[in-house]
Amino acid sequence: MSKPRSKPCLPGPTPSGSAQGAKSALDSLREQIDGIDQQLVDLLVQRGRIIQQVTDIKKRHDLPTFHPAREENLISTRRAQATQAGLDPDYVEDLFRTMLRHSRVGQLSTLSRRSVRPGAKILIVGGLGNMGRFFSTWLRQSDYEVRVLDRDDWPKVRSLTTEIDLCLLAVPIEITPSIALQIGKYLPPACVLTDITSLKRKPLEAMLRGHAGPVVGLHPLFGPATVTMDKQIVVFSPGRSLSKCQWFLDQLTLWGNVLVETPASEHDEIMGIVQALRHFATFTFGQFLCSRGVPVLRTLELSSPIYRLELAMVGRLFAQDPQLYAEIIFATPERQALLKDYLESLQKNLSLVERGDKTEFIARFRQIAEWFGPFSEQAMRESTFLVEKLVHRF
Amino acid sequence: MSKPRSKPCLPGPTPSGSAQGAKSALDSLREQIDGIDQQLVDLLVQRGRIIQQVTDIKKRHDLPTFHPAREENLISTRRAQATQAGLDPDYVEDLFRTMLRHSRVGQLSTLSRRSVRPGAKILIVGGLGNMGRFFSTWLRQSDYEVRVLDRDDWPKVRSLTTEIDLCLLAVPIEITPSIALQIGKYLPPACVLTDITSLKRKPLEAMLRGHAGPVVGLHPLFGPATVTMDKQIVVFSPGRSLSKCQWFLDQLTLWGNVLVETPASEHDEIMGIVQALRHFATFTFGQFLCSRGVPVLRTLELSSPIYRLELAMVGRLFAQDPQLYAEIIFATPERQALLKDYLESLQKNLSLVERGDKTEFIARFRQIAEWFGPFSEQAMRESTFLVEKLVHRF
Repeated sequence: MSKPRSKPCLPGPTPSGSAQGAKSALDSLREQIDGIDQQLVDLLVQRGRIIQQVTDIKKRHDLPTFHPAREENLISTRRAQATQAGLDPDYVEDLFRTMLRHSRVGQLSTLSRRSVRPGAKILIVGGLGNMGRFFSTWLRQSDYEVRVLDRDDWPKVRSLTTEIDLCLLAVPIEITPSIALQIGKYLPPACVLTDITSLKRKPLEAMLRGHAGPVVGLHPLFGPATVTMDKQIVVFSPGRSLSKCQWFLDQLTLWGNVLVETPASEHDEIMGIVQALRHFATFTFGQFLCSRGVPVLRTLELSSPIYRLELAMVGRLFAQDPQLYAEIIFATPERQALLKDYLESLQKNLSLVERGDKTEFIARFRQIAEWFGPFSEQAMRESTFLVEKLVHRF
Repeated sequence: MSKPRSKPCLPGPTPSGSAQGAKSALDSLREQIDGIDQQLVDLLVQRGRIIQQVTDIKKRHDLPTFHPAREENLISTRRAQATQAGLDPDYVEDLFRTMLRHSRVGQLSTLSRRSVRPGAKILIVGGLGNMGRFFSTWLRQSDYEVRVLDRDDWPKVRSLTTEIDLCLLAVPIEITPSIALQIGKYLPPACVLTDITSLKRKPLEAMLRGHAGPVVGLHPLFGPATVTMDKQIVVFSPGRSLSKCQWFLDQLTLWGNVLVETPASEHDEIMGIVQALRHFATFTFGQFLCSRGVPVLRTLELSSPIYRLELAMVGRLFAQDPQLYAEIIFATPERQALLKDYLESLQKNLSLVERGDKTEFIARFRQIAEWFGPFSEQAMRESTFLVEKLVHRF
């Protein structure tokens, strides 16, 4: 390795200069980088302006926001250009995905106000709760006439339900079935009845019993703090006359939601795992850390980014509404049975550890890995991608 | 909302044209976007070339890769420029962080070959294992003379240890202490003895007993599949004559690692939580899904991105080496006791659910949230940031 030398007086064939020479060479290169970066931002500004024009045209002509084929085509073209110029195509794709997302979200915030049925009358029962207020804002922005029925408004129920096109139940899980029976009596025959609780079987049964018209159960997989509907999932379970409910599902799609259909019983079984068990396990982990007084911040200093990500999942639970989690975990007797089964599984695994039976542990591990199949490789890829983002952001 | 009209024949004050007019206007705007995108990639190529020149100068003059102050300064300047031009500064920061990371990793792959002590002789005990081979590759690339002692090489131990400057133990946790005692007898007095197991107390004690010279315990928080050392954490526990071990710690820093010092006992206690308990809980979750035959892919379709992230953490465990996880979980009697305590916590929480005691659940929840303090808000922010990345990447 060449050592720093004194100032070069004569031009020579050796590539190295003095330490001072190196500094000034670096300074000049950094100035060049700054110049390029400034040009990059200028181009981003220009790009933003053109996209604003695209949005305006789309809005005037009711055209869809999102053009998947065009996005993929754009990515492929930039990847090819990168490869040809000797740049890493994944890197260039990463940058362009960020730009596309930004422009999609920007367009959505303008275009999402469009309405499938402007002026339609919608009653939100529980309209002063968090989710009730959330839907009320979105619906009003899209030119719906929104009415609210909360705890104290039952004396006005007749006038509130007059000529309404849709009734949305946004009350806690435990009272949703009884409210469905109660409100059903007042609804016009063609009115759509729907709910947004995180259980579907019982609320759907009650809505079908309480109302003879169109019924659909919804479960939006996002909370009231969501700022964009872009790609947010809404699960729906058909009840009756789905075609007459379609306009409301179309409204959700127009806002950017992705709709997934599932029978109510399948929904509830899967949510037992996805929500009740997962939240219970996460709660227990946080409770255990707290009960032992584990120094959380010190554990973060001494850990890999993967642990940081896992701990973030635990911490995030406790930044949210306990009532909501209690409702999900305590919802049904089936869920209690599920949690009990989980405890038994844990007990069996612990006795393996207490017996020191590593061989059996490894055999089980391999069996589970095989059962997961290609998913574990995919999980590895996804989580590694995210960990890189985490490391370089925070 | 204006409806599509027939082709405009005369210029007029109305902003809308026909559907065909809209299409051709959109096409022309899209061409402009393509032109801008092409220029963006051209600039990225130019940027890459200048960074290559920076790297060459840094390499010639042994300058550090990473310049945190310069990076933050660059980000602030671009944020200010974005704000002034009416662009979202977070969006611009996101793009530039990606660029900086790319250039840092690119520079590291060139610069990481630099050596703190070129030609120094390093013996890797267990040099044919995964981590042994990993370190052997990195050390050879940095001009060290690497020797390997694996299971069958003990007859050659005298010649292998002759004049070595450092001995690195890369054998399974359970045999690390006995190997430390065994090899100690052969080491030159000034030789550094170190290990890379995920426990520190016992291995460090054994190294100090087996060897009278400099000793330091290491725990790299990454696996053998790691491709860049950039910002990867290595925990170290000083044993004896730390200043004589410093050159090796400096080598790790030069490769891009971040070093964190901790006493061996603190290390082991924290790793009980961070590794043993966490892995055990994750293992149990995967085992439970498998034992019930839960349709994993269907649960993904019906879930929020947060669940997808949580399930990815479970799946990723099973893409890895069961032996390593068994070693971590089964390591010490203290760890078994920890897992047992965890089981008891879970049992207590379950009995809350079985009693239907929501009030107590919510009270505990609030208590834990308070204990986590500002961490839960931070966790919420970090995980939300990552979920957005996940949604828009996969």
